[in-house]
Amino acid sequence: MKTRKTQVAIIGAGPSGLLLGQLLHNAGIDTLILERQTPEYVLGRIRAGVLEQGMAELLRRAGTGQRMDAEGLVHEGFELALDGRRVHIDLKALTGGKTVTVYGQTEVTRDLMAARRETGGQTIYGAVNVAPGGMKSDTPFVTFEKDGETWRVDCDYIAGCDGFHGVARQSIPAECLKVFERVYPFGWLGILADTPPVHDELVYARHERGFALCSLRSATRTRYYLQVPAQERVEDWSDRRFWDELKTRLPETLAQKLVTGPSLEKSIAPLRSFVVEPMQYGRMFLVGDAAHIVPPTGAKGLNLAASDVSTLFDILLKVYREQRTDLLQKYSDICLRRVWKAERFSWWMTSMLHRFDEHDAFSQRISASELDYFVSSEAGRKTIAENYVGLPYEAIE
Amino acid sequence: MKTRKTQVAIIGAGPSGLLLGQLLHNAGIDTLILERQTPEYVLGRIRAGVLEQGMAELLRRAGTGQRMDAEGLVHEGFELALDGRRVHIDLKALTGGKTVTVYGQTEVTRDLMAARRETGGQTIYGAVNVAPGGMKSDTPFVTFEKDGETWRVDCDYIAGCDGFHGVARQSIPAECLKVFERVYPFGWLGILADTPPVHDELVYARHERGFALCSLRSATRTRYYLQVPAQERVEDWSDRRFWDELKTRLPETLAQKLVTGPSLEKSIAPLRSFVVEPMQYGRMFLVGDAAHIVPPTGAKGLNLAASDVSTLFDILLKVYREQRTDLLQKYSDICLRRVWKAERFSWWMTSMLHRFDEHDAFSQRISASELDYFVSSEAGRKTIAENYVGLPYEAIE
Repeated sequence: MKTRKTQVAIIGAGPSGLLLGQLLHNAGIDTLILERQTPEYVLGRIRAGVLEQGMAELLRRAGTGQRMDAEGLVHEGFELALDGRRVHIDLKALTGGKTVTVYGQTEVTRDLMAARRETGGQTIYGAVNVAPGGMKSDTPFVTFEKDGETWRVDCDYIAGCDGFHGVARQSIPAECLKVFERVYPFGWLGILADTPPVHDELVYARHERGFALCSLRSATRTRYYLQVPAQERVEDWSDRRFWDELKTRLPETLAQKLVTGPSLEKSIAPLRSFVVEPMQYGRMFLVGDAAHIVPPTGAKGLNLAASDVSTLFDILLKVYREQRTDLLQKYSDICLRRVWKAERFSWWMTSMLHRFDEHDAFSQRISASELDYFVSSEAGRKTIAENYVGLPYEAIE
Repeated sequence: MKTRKTQVAIIGAGPSGLLLGQLLHNAGIDTLILERQTPEYVLGRIRAGVLEQGMAELLRRAGTGQRMDAEGLVHEGFELALDGRRVHIDLKALTGGKTVTVYGQTEVTRDLMAARRETGGQTIYGAVNVAPGGMKSDTPFVTFEKDGETWRVDCDYIAGCDGFHGVARQSIPAECLKVFERVYPFGWLGILADTPPVHDELVYARHERGFALCSLRSATRTRYYLQVPAQERVEDWSDRRFWDELKTRLPETLAQKLVTGPSLEKSIAPLRSFVVEPMQYGRMFLVGDAAHIVPPTGAKGLNLAASDVSTLFDILLKVYREQRTDLLQKYSDICLRRVWKAERFSWWMTSMLHRFDEHDAFSQRISASELDYFVSSEAGRKTIAENYVGLPYEAIE
């Protein structure tokens, strides 16, 4: 078995692993990132595209914000379409100046990959059978295989940035984790198309036939979603059927402006809420999707990974620079406070905007009244806006 | 059969019937109130005691606000005790100056009874077998029996102010009403005692053993409640057991100040959310509990009856003075908009503060996170405060 050494071993080269790696690398802390897939595969995953201000600032702090600032679209608001009525949520006015940036996760990943390459950070792609070990000892390590050889990386800490299906969380004894989960009885059918956006802001539409979302990646690339039953098959949805259904669910004033075109990608994603507690096990820390999943309504998934990264980075910085090892045990509690608030918001947005066939008449009226109240009250709109732009990160002291 | 005539026949001499009667009487519109019970029985019902500003203003408008203004306690805030942590909700600061008035429903009823007596409004107590008729015709009527004689009251309109178990709603064909209902798996065990209040504001306490509420009627009379299982028997709760359990559920800083004493009254009330749509049937209008019930968390029941009264009075005034009969058909829609917002708030306060044994782990964390978010955010506290002091009444135009 060959061996290597690093200070922080990072499992997973998605945006959280790369962002944590870049921040640590810039601070002079040595990292090694292990990724099972190829860079091309990682870049091929089409995911979120709305960045909270806190995440945008963190990318700048990592020195990887230039292209985002040049090409990202700053959105000062979004729209709710409630059974035909259009309600504008003025994020900037309601939050005292905060905004979100529309910039695809693929682009974030590309920028982080480029930065890591340029600054000499090391990433091992195609690392298979990755396995963390010794997490409860003072000498943790990660083993993996690459090109037929077995490696062992000795390190101080391990960051599990390998997503919901990754090995990090699964390496923690089940009896040490408490799982919280909600699986929704529907999914999102999404398409990507090179068409001009129907509206210059995102539109979240509640309709008796189900939820729809008009999102975008740029002035020429759009991303639209439809709520569909969980067991739906993507083969049953021609482009034509998708566009027709989308038009039906949008207010007339938007439907008539909708430009359709061939889909570049079409897929169905399940909706799930998931949290494990705690988010750490000895010297291994779970980051982002490895520890929690939100339904995509409200665009919190990537942003929540970023706030975990920020917390872990700030703690590790104080550990290495000021020997503040007392902070390590606080990682999970600090993250979970923000995680649960974002889980709450994502669950709430999902509950308010989707059609739930199994809900009784009372629940349906309550849900309609809740949304009705929140959009009619300035304080209510503020709660939506401040969650949408992202609640503040907790300072590490 | 003996006959009488009036303009508006009001079924029920509780606070809504009396308040509507007084407003109409003052405006020169003739009313007759029919009540099955005696005045003493009506006054013996111990109910709510927190008046929204809108209701206080309506009582003043009816000329019955003097004693409330002299003896009622103006509360500028209330307290949430969340698993031991005390959070102050500053109603006045959060709503731009609004407050609530602590003044018992019994006192409101007493004042309205006195005013009706003084101004010569007529109320028939002990009216049995009350039955509305002809509601869909231009000649509605109410029949009843009194002292062995049968009477028929011919009128223009009927107001059903006779509560959840009353005859008004039950006289509407079931196929004309849509019912929305939620029965909670617990009740409130309440006691009334002549002890000084543990705190000068109301305290709503969330505790792992269940909800508790510290309320009051005056500087020397208190009303305390405990969440208990729905099937609990009041005989199983000695005063001693009640006080011990209450102390357990309050934060230490309050528990140590609690003054106990013999209970003057002790009873268990079920918790229910209930709405019928529409709130009218021809020339009969349902008011207050006859059309909707809220769980008591948030003190909305009596206040919601008052806003129905206000809406019906404003409409009838325009009908009699300006022949605006077009407004009659809007009664239900106008009321229901506010009713559903209050149902939502009452359901929300109930859900946030009570223990729900049947909730899964995810729902329990979401509920804790929701409350945690709402009290930590100023916008969140504003939504609580503006609902608690009462959302504005809709103008009738």
